[in-house]
Amino acid sequence: MGALDEGHFIGTLENGVKPESLKLDLEHESETAVIEDAVKVLLQGLGEDSNREGLKKTPVRVAKALREGTRGYRQKVKDIVQGALFPEAGLYNGVGHAGGAGGLVVVRDLDLFSYCESCLLPFQVKCHVGYVPSGQRVVGLSKLSRVADVFAKRLQGPQRLANEVCLALHNAIKPAGVAVLLQCWHIQFPEVECSNAEQSNHLTEVDMPGWEKISVTSGLGVFENEKGDCWVDFLSVLKFRGVNVQNNSQSSWCPCRSLDVLTCNGHTSTRNSSCRASTNMVPTQPAMITAVTTILQSLGEDPLRKELVGTPQRFVHWLMNFKRSNLEMKLNGFYSSRMGLLSLQTYNGNISSNQDEIQSVLNLPFWSQCEHHLLPFHGVVHIGYFHPHGADPVGRSTLQSITHFYGCKLQVQERLTRQIAETVSSMLGEDVVVVVEANHICMISRGIEKVGSSTATIAVLGRFSTDPNAKAMFLQTISNSTGYGRT
Amino acid sequence: MGALDEGHFIGTLENGVKPESLKLDLEHESETAVIEDAVKVLLQGLGEDSNREGLKKTPVRVAKALREGTRGYRQKVKDIVQGALFPEAGLYNGVGHAGGAGGLVVVRDLDLFSYCESCLLPFQVKCHVGYVPSGQRVVGLSKLSRVADVFAKRLQGPQRLANEVCLALHNAIKPAGVAVLLQCWHIQFPEVECSNAEQSNHLTEVDMPGWEKISVTSGLGVFENEKGDCWVDFLSVLKFRGVNVQNNSQSSWCPCRSLDVLTCNGHTSTRNSSCRASTNMVPTQPAMITAVTTILQSLGEDPLRKELVGTPQRFVHWLMNFKRSNLEMKLNGFYSSRMGLLSLQTYNGNISSNQDEIQSVLNLPFWSQCEHHLLPFHGVVHIGYFHPHGADPVGRSTLQSITHFYGCKLQVQERLTRQIAETVSSMLGEDVVVVVEANHICMISRGIEKVGSSTATIAVLGRFSTDPNAKAMFLQTISNSTGYGRT
Repeated sequence: MGALDEGHFIGTLENGVKPESLKLDLEHESETAVIEDAVKVLLQGLGEDSNREGLKKTPVRVAKALREGTRGYRQKVKDIVQGALFPEAGLYNGVGHAGGAGGLVVVRDLDLFSYCESCLLPFQVKCHVGYVPSGQRVVGLSKLSRVADVFAKRLQGPQRLANEVCLALHNAIKPAGVAVLLQCWHIQFPEVECSNAEQSNHLTEVDMPGWEKISVTSGLGVFENEKGDCWVDFLSVLKFRGVNVQNNSQSSWCPCRSLDVLTCNGHTSTRNSSCRASTNMVPTQPAMITAVTTILQSLGEDPLRKELVGTPQRFVHWLMNFKRSNLEMKLNGFYSSRMGLLSLQTYNGNISSNQDEIQSVLNLPFWSQCEHHLLPFHGVVHIGYFHPHGADPVGRSTLQSITHFYGCKLQVQERLTRQIAETVSSMLGEDVVVVVEANHICMISRGIEKVGSSTATIAVLGRFSTDPNAKAMFLQTISNSTGYGRT
Repeated sequence: MGALDEGHFIGTLENGVKPESLKLDLEHESETAVIEDAVKVLLQGLGEDSNREGLKKTPVRVAKALREGTRGYRQKVKDIVQGALFPEAGLYNGVGHAGGAGGLVVVRDLDLFSYCESCLLPFQVKCHVGYVPSGQRVVGLSKLSRVADVFAKRLQGPQRLANEVCLALHNAIKPAGVAVLLQCWHIQFPEVECSNAEQSNHLTEVDMPGWEKISVTSGLGVFENEKGDCWVDFLSVLKFRGVNVQNNSQSSWCPCRSLDVLTCNGHTSTRNSSCRASTNMVPTQPAMITAVTTILQSLGEDPLRKELVGTPQRFVHWLMNFKRSNLEMKLNGFYSSRMGLLSLQTYNGNISSNQDEIQSVLNLPFWSQCEHHLLPFHGVVHIGYFHPHGADPVGRSTLQSITHFYGCKLQVQERLTRQIAETVSSMLGEDVVVVVEANHICMISRGIEKVGSSTATIAVLGRFSTDPNAKAMFLQTISNSTGYGRT
């Protein structure tokens, strides 16, 4: 397409990005300031005081993270690949393919992050790239990752991301062919209306918080035929690492879209007729929706691009699940709840000083929103308490409700842990231990990009803070449940 | 220690770093130019032409990577933690620890990279940090990672790294205590003298190329007593993720030190008396050693710091294993070698057109040095060939020798694959397939830092390039050997 030669490659992609927006610099203060103002509107919409200590710098943090997370709009593939094409001989004799003239090269398991164009939430990508060299030259291996990252650092859908990476590499390297396989994981929205937690003690128990998964492929040149030998080789090499995927591309993978009740072009359409909520689930928050639209524009995007229509609504809808609640939890109601009794794990406390038993309720899933970055963190809560011998234990669903109540707001994990411990303590006596384990999207999708990292916090009350054996016994119970417990 | 308050924290660490060197900017051209010149000396010492295409930009690449990889000398902990301490309440009622006043916080599995101060090779770190908040405040979780990275991005030893991260966090956060546990992996030098490969057909078979592992801990405040309850909690929480380590700190973990025959202070001392080579294994390469010393100085280090004495010699020793050889391989000698016959895996070729069998020799370890970055890449080679029915197969050790010969030099993986295929083809007939799987240290320790990534390359000659079934059968054999083969 020749665009690479002109150094305006990304300007030619038909994704609504205006070329002039590419000139924006990360430090471009006015653009960052616009996003900051928009974030303040969102915080107000969530019922938060944007001047409180934990939130004071949230707007600037979010603005910088968004600009950084979409830096791909300001990068050129040509700049990256330039100087990294190396002459490399092919076979000297005989029939076959090797080196700079044939011979598949595959880089596997590149961890990337992107932003979902349907809802603005980050999604995780494991990217596998293969190409067949031609013209007696090969490309520096790291460039395959860098080029993929240029397109990941934009608002994307999986298939479009795969196609754009594939096309860009094909144009930049001019090989015999390029194949891209992406495994993408989207945050899966929990099947619970968090903001209504105070209205009901009968919450649907959520699945283990997880990710929506999709795999997509894209191929050019010798990889154009997905049934061809080149694809067989590429997929074989991925199988060495346990990557065994089917292309299950679908038009919409974003879980937020399944809740769509969009009002576009003057008519209301329910995207997913099996949607639990047939009433309009999108709160009317025109100021917030306008603020998100402004953010899209500041990033250099066209809010009218067809994939982005409805995105501000979806993001606001997602965010409103974490609206600050003004209602107090009806704690008294919990005592009557005995649901989930059978799922409790009971362990003999074996504490010499008394006859009580330690009750352990493990792996209660939760979702929360990091108040420093406006990005989700999610994981599980483990609760232990001393239970008088012979008395009925409390239901798992009750503890799940408490977890939801404190999770579904702007939070920090340390506070969440303390609040759950204090509430459980007020119900079940003073001897309580709470462990929260979470993945923070802000830790893995931006800045430090520590993909495998996770955070654990502990609160210990009463006997669990004074009796090391009791605490150790509870922690061992968690270890046992992970399968790593055997010492 | 008050140093943080003055903003000169790292200048006070007794590691020989001169404060004035901290002012260096990554773009400081003169420092980069000095390293470039030194790298050119190293390339000449390796018998390479630094003007050939693949090496032309290697000096500037290495210089930039080294400056980037040691950026920690120019970073201040204060700048990182500033503004990321958030007020957070402790328990409102009752006895215990939670939130901003007690209640352990642990961030697990932070992937970092550092440079070994004994030999300049990168080592991989999985960093786990715990702290107990006090003073009603908590620190932003990502700061634990960022501060650890400041000290990782220097020339380090594991224990010193752990101590420095621990001390810096303790001073910056002022918590009740900090615990650091590092799992470190050092490249394990293969037990083969690569540069002598052409002199012998009787190479010791190397172990699976791997890493030397060590675990170290450091604790301050409530973590000062390693037998205390706080450590029990910290280690319990790590066990949830399968981290189950013993502190096995030792004075020297760097494998290059075990080969030390140092000439310091006028006397020769053999560090490791069980060392295979009792003769002086360090080639006299004064120009190269001076060049590496210059590099240390350019990074802001003091080459006379006790941990760095001998480092230039060790690095040059390591590098000289990849010296370009002027001797041709005595290929004729290979035919007589029948060693390792039993380790061959034989598969019925099941190719309708002939009665030959496909011989598969899998998982031949290799070590090589990336010519673009002067950093190792290592992994395994899989070789397949058609073997006339009834004839004796060739020995595994022969193929291992060929692999070593082409591995132990400045290389790119595509070329290595082709050269092995061509050589095997000249010995065993025209029908050969070679698959090389490798981890590139340049892909995981610098720039893109793609920890889990790996690269596979394929060369197909003769029937393997024309018969998709033969190739597919061989690839399936590899899959089967990985345990992922079942479809």
